[in-house]
Parts: sequence; structure tokens; C-alpha cells
Amino acid sequence: MRVEIWSDIACPWCYVGKARFEKALSAFPHRDQVEVVHRSFELDPHRAKDDIQPVLTMLTRKYGMSEAQARAGEDNLGQQAAAEGLDYRTTGRDHGSTFDMHRLLHLAKEHGRQDELLQILYRANFAEERSVYAEGEERLVELAVEAGLDAEDARRVLADPAAYADAVRADEREAAALGANGVPFFVLDRTYGVSGAQPAEVFTQALTQAWGARPALELIEDGGADACGPDGCAVPPRR
Amino acid sequence: MRVEIWSDIACPWCYVGKARFEKALSAFPHRDQVEVVHRSFELDPHRAKDDIQPVLTMLTRKYGMSEAQARAGEDNLGQQAAAEGLDYRTTGRDHGSTFDMHRLLHLAKEHGRQDELLQILYRANFAEERSVYAEGEERLVELAVEAGLDAEDARRVLADPAAYADAVRADEREAAALGANGVPFFVLDRTYGVSGAQPAEVFTQALTQAWGARPALELIEDGGADACGPDGCAVPPRR
Repeated sequence: MRVEIWSDIACPWCYVGKARFEKALSAFPHRDQVEVVHRSFELDPHRAKDDIQPVLTMLTRKYGMSEAQARAGEDNLGQQAAAEGLDYRTTGRDHGSTFDMHRLLHLAKEHGRQDELLQILYRANFAEERSVYAEGEERLVELAVEAGLDAEDARRVLADPAAYADAVRADEREAAALGANGVPFFVLDRTYGVSGAQPAEVFTQALTQAWGARPALELIEDGGADACGPDGCAVPPRR
Repeated sequence: MRVEIWSDIACPWCYVGKARFEKALSAFPHRDQVEVVHRSFELDPHRAKDDIQPVLTMLTRKYGMSEAQARAGEDNLGQQAAAEGLDYRTTGRDHGSTFDMHRLLHLAKEHGRQDELLQILYRANFAEERSVYAEGEERLVELAVEAGLDAEDARRVLADPAAYADAVRADEREAAALGANGVPFFVLDRTYGVSGAQPAEVFTQALTQAWGARPALELIEDGGADACGPDGCAVPPRR
């Protein structure tokens, strides 16, 4: 079974939702047969790379919140994160473009380090005093290396804005096609969707339901095939 | 869309079938959205690691063929391979356990090099004078390095018989659960199956059919979710 998770590094509920999903997954009896794939989703796709703001400034300007509302929202997120055992800085974080991070996550996917890199990006952004925006490429290279990637590979990708750009855009088009207009967005076997950082019990229910509904296979072609099996490699008369 | 291919390095029809499938895939309009995953299947799972035989000896002893039948089968396979532009040695190949190679393919999957390694193993086994059995671990390390893996990683996996052993067995259990009793076996989105090295047109039909049948998503949970979207991160009243 495969679970695809659309998320953004700038999305606090994605950080919290990942922990809630993983809590459900770790107790799921068939967890060894569940593959998790992370997909790109930018909450702020039009933001320029050098347009970096404090989160509170972004919340008041972009979403028209009062400063009190913005602070209350951050405090609530901090409490929700703490309930999942996650550190969360409610003040002092930056906001900016996450496009380069999504490109790096596609590099990481090719090296089997995607989950590690996403978790490290979340931690740096939400829990640690390490801006994923302000230090530019060297901070991202540093985090990529922590995730087990090669520094030169990461630098090469960051230096070429086209690298994995199509992969990021393809993920985002796919999210739109699947009806996701926010993140985190979880898709199980392309059949069931879960929107938002739901409680772990909801993910348990979704995993159980999707597991039970795995489709029976329809054989498109079987007879007369060229195949090898327990009785050897069939050598039928040639077509 | 995802295509899983169960195959064995010792399976000539898997070598031919991979080329036929790739011919169909390369012409498929949505090929950029098709992910290919290789799964393990041993045709000869009980063979000891040091039990290496010439292929013709194996065919006559294991499958009870006459030598003339075995040679005719190999000649036919050579013709089928040539028709796909593949080199195929009809004589002089070895047969043995492929378990270690499947373990290496799981390592390669983690590094995004699975398809490369499988193709290199096929070429060494079927086309080149490089036995994948007789030279033991150093030959497999050499081939792993050609696929872009780290030599030390490959040696570490080969030295530890438990490394990825469960992953190989899990693939094989899954093949049985899906009804595969021979390889190659192709599964599209866990919904459609194609058994055997079918002509490229059959794979084209399967890809087209599976693409058209991609399921609509059923939302298990949506309302009241903690999510971030174009209008910011919702902060609903806490449960």
C-alpha cells in the first residue's frame, strides 16, 4: 500500500500532521507493507526567493490577521505541536519561498532520503534557530548533508533553478487534480484521501479502510505468455 | 501511476519483457507520470549459494528437458531477444541463486538506482561474458558500482545475509498474494496485471486502460481539519 503526503515546509499543520500520521502508522499491523512518498505543495508559490519576512508580518499582511490573532494562532500551534512531542518556536521564525527545498526533496527522493530531509527541514524551520530561508543555499546544503545527501549534489541542484522544477510543478498539478486545496493532504493507494492534520485515530481508520479495500487484480493478458515459472521458461510456438 | 514489475535476474523472459514494456512506456503520452518499481521473485528460491551449474545442465536436470529441447529453447530466446535489440548468449551461461542480487536491488532502490542495477545484472548475465554467479561477491560489487552504488555499501549488504532478506521475501509473498506464479509479472496501480513478456502493444493497452481507470478519490475526513491553504492556516476551536 502506498501513502502519498502533499505538504509544505512552511506549513505548521504539515509538521504536526506528519507526527500524527506516523503515530498511526507505527501501530498499524501492516506498516511494513506501507510505502510513504512525500509530494510537493507550496502554500506561497508566487513568493520571490529573496522575499523573506518574519512569520507574524506575513500572517498580518498576507492573510489580514490582527497581530493578536496571529499570535494566538501561533500559540495554539505550539500547544498542538507539544502534544505530539514536537518542539515549536512560536516567535522569531521567518517565512519565504520553499521552492528550492521542494527541489531538494526530489533529489533526496532519488537517494532514498526524502523522509529524512523533510523531517530535518521541519525541525530547522519550526523547532531550531536555523532559518531555512535566511542563510540561503549554504543552510540548505548543510541540512541536505544532515539528511545523508552529498553536498555537491545539493549545490548542483540549488545552482540550477530548472533542476527538479518540473517534478515540483507536477506534484502541485496532481494535488489540484486530486482536489487538494490545502495541506497536509494524504492519499492512500490513490483511492482514499485525508485532508488536514487529523488525529492519529483518523489515520488509523484510513489505513485500515484502504488496506481492506485493496483491489483484486484484473489480468489484462495472461494466456500464451512468454514467462518463466516453477516449471521452467515456457517456449510456446512463435506468433 | 505506478507499475510494479516482479522479475528474476535468471529469467530470460524478464530480460526480454523489460525491453518490450519500456518500448511501450517510452511512447506512452503520460510516461512522465508513470513510476516503475522492480520487485523480487526467485525462480529457484531453494538453490544454495554455491550451487552453480551451466544453464543447459540446469534445464535438463531441473525441468527434465532433453538437451535438444533445451538448446532449441535457448535459440528461440536468442531470437526473441535479438528482435528487441538485445544481445543474448545462447550458450555458456551459468545458473545459480539470485537471492543476493535481489538483496542488492533493494539497496539500489533506496538509492534510486534500482532500474540501472537490474539492467546491468541482466546484461552481465545474458549478454556479456560476466557470470553473476561464479565470481561471487566481487563481481556483484563491480556491477553495483557500475549502477552508481557505493562499493562499501554493496559489500556490507553482501556480507550480511539478513540485509534486505525480509524485503525480498515480502516481495515474493506479495507476488503470491497477487496470483503471480511466474515472471515477469506487471502490476499497474495494483489494479491491472499483465503476466509474461507480452508484445509492446499489450503493455500499451494496459497502460492506457489503467490510466483511464485511475480511481476518483474518496475523502475519509475533510471537515474541520487543521490545515494550511491559500487563506492561511485554519485555527479551529480545539477539540
